[in-house]
Amino acid sequence: MALKKKPVNGMKDILPTEMQIRDYVIEIIKETYRSFGFTLIDTPSVEHIENLSNKQGGENEKLIFKILKRGEKLKLETAKSEDDLVDGGLRYDLTVPLVRYYANHENELPTPFKALQIGYVWRADRPQRGRYRQFMQCDIDILGDESNMAEIELILATGSTLAKLGFKNFQIRINDRRILKAMAASCGFSENEYDSVFIALDKMDKIGLAGVFEELLNHGLPKEKADQFVKLIGRFAKAKVCENLDLLTNALVDHLDAEVIKSMTEILGSVEAAKLSEYEIIFDPTLVRGMSYYTGSIFEVAIPEFGGSCGGGGRHDKMVGNFTGKDVPGVGFSIGFERIVLLLIESGFQIPDKASKKAYLLEKGLSNKITGDILRKAQMERDAGGQILVTRMNKNKKFQKEQLNKEGYSEILEIYRD
Amino acid sequence: MALKKKPVNGMKDILPTEMQIRDYVIEIIKETYRSFGFTLIDTPSVEHIENLSNKQGGENEKLIFKILKRGEKLKLETAKSEDDLVDGGLRYDLTVPLVRYYANHENELPTPFKALQIGYVWRADRPQRGRYRQFMQCDIDILGDESNMAEIELILATGSTLAKLGFKNFQIRINDRRILKAMAASCGFSENEYDSVFIALDKMDKIGLAGVFEELLNHGLPKEKADQFVKLIGRFAKAKVCENLDLLTNALVDHLDAEVIKSMTEILGSVEAAKLSEYEIIFDPTLVRGMSYYTGSIFEVAIPEFGGSCGGGGRHDKMVGNFTGKDVPGVGFSIGFERIVLLLIESGFQIPDKASKKAYLLEKGLSNKITGDILRKAQMERDAGGQILVTRMNKNKKFQKEQLNKEGYSEILEIYRD
Repeated sequence: MALKKKPVNGMKDILPTEMQIRDYVIEIIKETYRSFGFTLIDTPSVEHIENLSNKQGGENEKLIFKILKRGEKLKLETAKSEDDLVDGGLRYDLTVPLVRYYANHENELPTPFKALQIGYVWRADRPQRGRYRQFMQCDIDILGDESNMAEIELILATGSTLAKLGFKNFQIRINDRRILKAMAASCGFSENEYDSVFIALDKMDKIGLAGVFEELLNHGLPKEKADQFVKLIGRFAKAKVCENLDLLTNALVDHLDAEVIKSMTEILGSVEAAKLSEYEIIFDPTLVRGMSYYTGSIFEVAIPEFGGSCGGGGRHDKMVGNFTGKDVPGVGFSIGFERIVLLLIESGFQIPDKASKKAYLLEKGLSNKITGDILRKAQMERDAGGQILVTRMNKNKKFQKEQLNKEGYSEILEIYRD
Repeated sequence: MALKKKPVNGMKDILPTEMQIRDYVIEIIKETYRSFGFTLIDTPSVEHIENLSNKQGGENEKLIFKILKRGEKLKLETAKSEDDLVDGGLRYDLTVPLVRYYANHENELPTPFKALQIGYVWRADRPQRGRYRQFMQCDIDILGDESNMAEIELILATGSTLAKLGFKNFQIRINDRRILKAMAASCGFSENEYDSVFIALDKMDKIGLAGVFEELLNHGLPKEKADQFVKLIGRFAKAKVCENLDLLTNALVDHLDAEVIKSMTEILGSVEAAKLSEYEIIFDPTLVRGMSYYTGSIFEVAIPEFGGSCGGGGRHDKMVGNFTGKDVPGVGFSIGFERIVLLLIESGFQIPDKASKKAYLLEKGLSNKITGDILRKAQMERDAGGQILVTRMNKNKKFQKEQLNKEGYSEILEIYRD
C-alpha cells in the first residue's frame, strides 16, 4: 500500500509555531486552575461504546469514531450491524469519561472533588475551517458540592484564566435551566413543548426576537403563547447583573422556587465582589446551552473579538447517578481551547521569551577537544537557564543563520577549525 | 445498554497523585529538551492504516486499534475482510507519524529539525502489570543532520533530563548496526543469517553468552561460526568507553568502514567531555534494539534500580525516503516515560511543593458581603502565587480537615456566620 503524507481527513499536524502557543495556553490554564485547588486527572481516550451511546451526548453520539473489536471477538461473517463489530469508541467529550471516572473512584477522591482535564476528544464532524475531527478540550468540574460556591469558583477561575491569557472585556453569561422552564411555564407552555421553545430561543443571537417568534410558530406552537413568551423574554433579554432579578422573581412567582433567584443573586454578587480582572458577569435569561444533561445553572463565555461562544458549562446533578444509582451534585465549565488558540494566533500573539537563545554552529572536522569544550560550555549555559542550540554548520551558512534568527536565536557563534 | 464504571480493558484512569507526578515529569522533560533547542510538535492520534501497516512497525503492526470507516464508506454487506471496514488506526508509536509529518511539512521546517513529541500511543497488547494499552511516549528526534552531532545532542539531552528527574548512576549504552553486521560478517555469517544472529544476541542480558551460543545453534546456524561469534562477543562485551575500540577496529578491519569506529569514538569522547551529571556512556557491542528501521547508531538507557531498558533509540536514515523518495537523515531517542513514572512512584518520590496551600471552609448561610470578601482575598492570594481552596464546610468537618491536610493544605481557616 502506498504511504500517505497528509494527515487523515479532518485532523491536523501541529507545526512548531502553533504548538508553542498551545503549550503556553495549557501552562496558563494549569497554573491558574491549580491556584484554585483544581487537580489534574486523565481518562483513557477510548471509552466503552455503551457509555458513549447513552443518549446524554446528544448530537455527538452520531459522530463517534468507533473501534473495531479485536481478534477472536470480531466475527465478521455473522455480523449484522456495526454494533456487532465494535466495543469501544474515541471519547467525544470529557464529561462522560469524568462521570464514569468519579463513579469508579468515588471512595478514593476528596469531597468536593475539583477536577481539571486537558485532553483530546474526537468527533467525525464534517471538516470545515477551524473545526477539526480531533481537538483539545479543557474542562474543570466540581463534584460533590451542591452549594453555589461551586458555580462561583468555576466562574472566578475561568475569568482569571482568560484574563491571564490577555483577554479583556469579555462576558461570562449565566442562566438557570429552572428559570428557562419557569419562563416557558408562565406563558402556558406544557412540559413536552419546552424543548421546542428552548431550541427556538437558542437561536436568538442570530435571528433576533422576531425570528424566535417565527420559529415558535414553525414548531407548531400556539400564537398566543408564543407572543407572550417573546414579550417576557423582551423584558429581560441581556439584563445586567441583578438589575432585573426582582422583576423576574415577580413575573415567575408561581412557577419558580424563590431559592433559585436567591442563589443566582448570590452567584452574581459574589463574582462581582471578588473578581480582580476586567470582565463582566451577566445574567442572561435567553441563554440556553444545548446539552440535555444540565439540571440547574448554565454559563457561557463570550469574547467580543469572536462572534460565537468561547466556553460554557453548567450544573449536571444527575450524571453520576446514571452509573451508581446515587446522584452526586456536579457542575462543570469547559473553556474553548481551540478557539482561544485561534484568537491568539490571529491577533499575532507573541509568547514572552523566557530564555536567552544562543546557537553554536560547528564547522565539520573540529577536534574532539574543541567540540567537547563547546558542548560542555553549552551544557552549563543551559543549566543557567539558556536555550542553547549546538549544531553543525550547513553548507549554506547564510540561509542557516537567517533561519535561526527567525526562530529567535539572537546570538549565533560560528566555530571553525584552527 | 448498561453503563460501565471501569475503564475499557487494559487502559487506566489516572488518579490525582499519579497525575501530579506525570505532570511533573512532563514539565522537566519539556524544560530540559527545550534548553537544547528541541521544539514541541504534535500529530493526530489517528493515522492512515496504510502508514501503520508498512512493515516498519514490526510486531506493533499486529497490535493496531483499528477505526471503523464511517457512514456511506462502510459497506458491511460486501466486506470480505477487516481491511474493507477500516481506513485508520490509533498510532502505535510516535516515529511513524513524525516521519509522515516531516515528509508533509519539510519546506516549512528548519534544517536540522529538532522535534520533541509527548503523546499517547495505543497497542492492543495483552494487558499485564505495569503495561497498558494506552501509554505515553516521549520522543526527541533530529531530522536533516547526517553528522554525529545529532547523536551527541540526543544523548546529552536525555542524560540531563534523567539527571534532573533525580536518577543517578544510570548508563547510556551505544552501539551501531554497522558494527553488529561487521561482527556477524567477520565470523562468516551471510547477510540472510544476520537477523537470526541479532535475535539471539538480543537475549544475552537474560541468557548469557552460553545461552546465545545455544540460540544460534537452535536457529540452525553452523556450530563453527556460532563459536567464533560468541568468542568475538566475549572479548568486547560490556567494554568501557573507548577502551577496546582499537581492538575492535583491528578485528573487524575487513568488514567495517573505519569511519564508523571514528564516529563512535567521537560520540563517546564528546559526551564524556561535556556531560555535567553522574551517568555513564558505554559502548556496548552486544546492544541490538529490535526495530528494523535503524541504519546506524543505536542506544539504550539502563537504570540500575530497574531491570529492563528505560528508553532507547537510534539512527533511521531511510524513513522519510519511504514517503518522499528522497532520504533524509534522522536519529531519535525515546525516553521510557511510563517506566520512569513507575520508578518515581515506587521510590516514594514527593514533588517539591511550589505554592503555599491554604483552604477556606465557609459555613453555609454566610452573608454575601463576607463571602465576597473572602473570595476576593483568596483571589489576591492566588495572584501572589498561593494555591487557595475556597469551599463549603462539610457536615463532617473533622474528616474534611483531615482530607485537606493529606492533600497538603497546611493552613485551614474556618469562616462562620456572625
